[in-house]
Amino acid sequence: MEKFYIGADIGGTTVKFGMFSRTGEMMEKWEIETRVEDEGVNILPDVAASIEEKRAEKDGNIMGIGIGVPGPVTDEGVVLRCPNIHWPVLHVRSKLVELTGVGNIKVGNDANVAALGEMWKGGGRGFDSIVMVTLGTGVGGGIILGGKMLTGVKGAGGEIGHTKVEWNETEECGCGGKGCLEQYASATGIVRMAKSGLRQDSSLAGIEDMTAKDVLDAAKAGDEYALIITERFAKYLGVALANVAHVVDPEAFVIGGGVSLAGEIIIKKVEKYYNDNVLYALRDKEFRLAELGNDAGIYGAVRMVL
Amino acid sequence: MEKFYIGADIGGTTVKFGMFSRTGEMMEKWEIETRVEDEGVNILPDVAASIEEKRAEKDGNIMGIGIGVPGPVTDEGVVLRCPNIHWPVLHVRSKLVELTGVGNIKVGNDANVAALGEMWKGGGRGFDSIVMVTLGTGVGGGIILGGKMLTGVKGAGGEIGHTKVEWNETEECGCGGKGCLEQYASATGIVRMAKSGLRQDSSLAGIEDMTAKDVLDAAKAGDEYALIITERFAKYLGVALANVAHVVDPEAFVIGGGVSLAGEIIIKKVEKYYNDNVLYALRDKEFRLAELGNDAGIYGAVRMVL
Repeated sequence: MEKFYIGADIGGTTVKFGMFSRTGEMMEKWEIETRVEDEGVNILPDVAASIEEKRAEKDGNIMGIGIGVPGPVTDEGVVLRCPNIHWPVLHVRSKLVELTGVGNIKVGNDANVAALGEMWKGGGRGFDSIVMVTLGTGVGGGIILGGKMLTGVKGAGGEIGHTKVEWNETEECGCGGKGCLEQYASATGIVRMAKSGLRQDSSLAGIEDMTAKDVLDAAKAGDEYALIITERFAKYLGVALANVAHVVDPEAFVIGGGVSLAGEIIIKKVEKYYNDNVLYALRDKEFRLAELGNDAGIYGAVRMVL
Repeated sequence: MEKFYIGADIGGTTVKFGMFSRTGEMMEKWEIETRVEDEGVNILPDVAASIEEKRAEKDGNIMGIGIGVPGPVTDEGVVLRCPNIHWPVLHVRSKLVELTGVGNIKVGNDANVAALGEMWKGGGRGFDSIVMVTLGTGVGGGIILGGKMLTGVKGAGGEIGHTKVEWNETEECGCGGKGCLEQYASATGIVRMAKSGLRQDSSLAGIEDMTAKDVLDAAKAGDEYALIITERFAKYLGVALANVAHVVDPEAFVIGGGVSLAGEIIIKKVEKYYNDNVLYALRDKEFRLAELGNDAGIYGAVRMVL
């Protein structure tokens, strides 16, 4: 019988799965709906059933399962709170062992797991210590040092989006704080900055439902106001990553999420502000774009058990 | 023959040594001058000679030597640059193995090593993951996660003093940057803040050669201006430690160095600003004062080889 490994990434809308060979080749991927009702009590049974269905279809053996979840996780695989999928405190690892009969199961925070995936097969290939930052609706962070995820004692390691970068902010971040990186470097943050003080001579002035892509596209086209906003975005992110470098001194930074699709313009500007704000010994780290998109999670998840 | 372990802490003026039993009891300590001339070429031979002298006096065997050095060190014990003691790139570990004939030798950055010492026998006792910050002439930082020093790829992990906490600073930090934590939270930084804008109604106005102790003592005595300065110090340090917590999520913070001798006033204020600026999951970490003073380095150094 063939031997398979499963990587799964539990999100607020879908659970993504990948089936991998022993050597880490992805053989198939699929997804199911995430049923968040009733404190998400169906999620793990659904995951186990979907894996069993695939196993039976292939008539193979499951040798290991790695799972990424959207919240803080301890090294023992206990989730402390997952608001996105309505989980209370839950021992994910032992529950899944019980449901699947597979002993080799590991659970990680989704941002850390995505970082592991990018380091293994994506933008962080060839490195051993990276900081990955995901610029989407929010700003997520995952840190890998010497090949191992930095989890932290409460599973809150790598929460870069909530480091403080501005003292004079008046609006509140989703976390209740003021001046968090997420307020400037997320897609939402870029739009927020662009809308506040929007100049009528900017091409952005005519756009309804402005997106971060609109702002970055306008900047690429030379719109002066959009360039100012992009510069502010890059300055906050560059300084925040400089602060992170002074703490963990990684080899490289990997930038992912929707905002990163703007490409090299982001990397170049962020890198400049980073280098302007770090100690000499920390200059000239590698800056890379993420490459795996939504698959980073399933790659990283399976990597934990391979 | 008795078996001994040595912890040594190389500073800009003296090298401090401790001789320890196998169970980690300090049996004796002593120090020698640090001869920094000629690119510090005499330092390691002096260290080896001093250890051999002590060994011969006790007629014992040296089972291991741990060394702290004032600069970035790789995991292999290579020092990349130590301006304080004039060292160029130097393979400290292999050189000392050659000079002493002892195989079990480890080398660490002095701030990381002091953190390890405080965790083992000082203010960080009972914890496994701590961030230590040393508030002296500068601001040093050492991070221990899961019992292991966070070194970083260029040995610059834990350089908390140069994280940026202020955008509007006009004066330069020693590192060439502007707005580094060190400019506000070191002894030098506290005096700098107090002197700039010094009010004539403050008890500090009459003091020549003002020290950080003067400022903190005046604050304890209720001097309004000194309290404002102390509050600013605590705010910058609290926010900087909050930023660090979002990256590494430790169990506890240990605050050492000359400034920490002011005691609980520091802890209480810093803790308040810390809690005001972290995610819910990171609140209520332990804050402790360092306890080992100048001996933290030799305790941490020997801990590496015990």
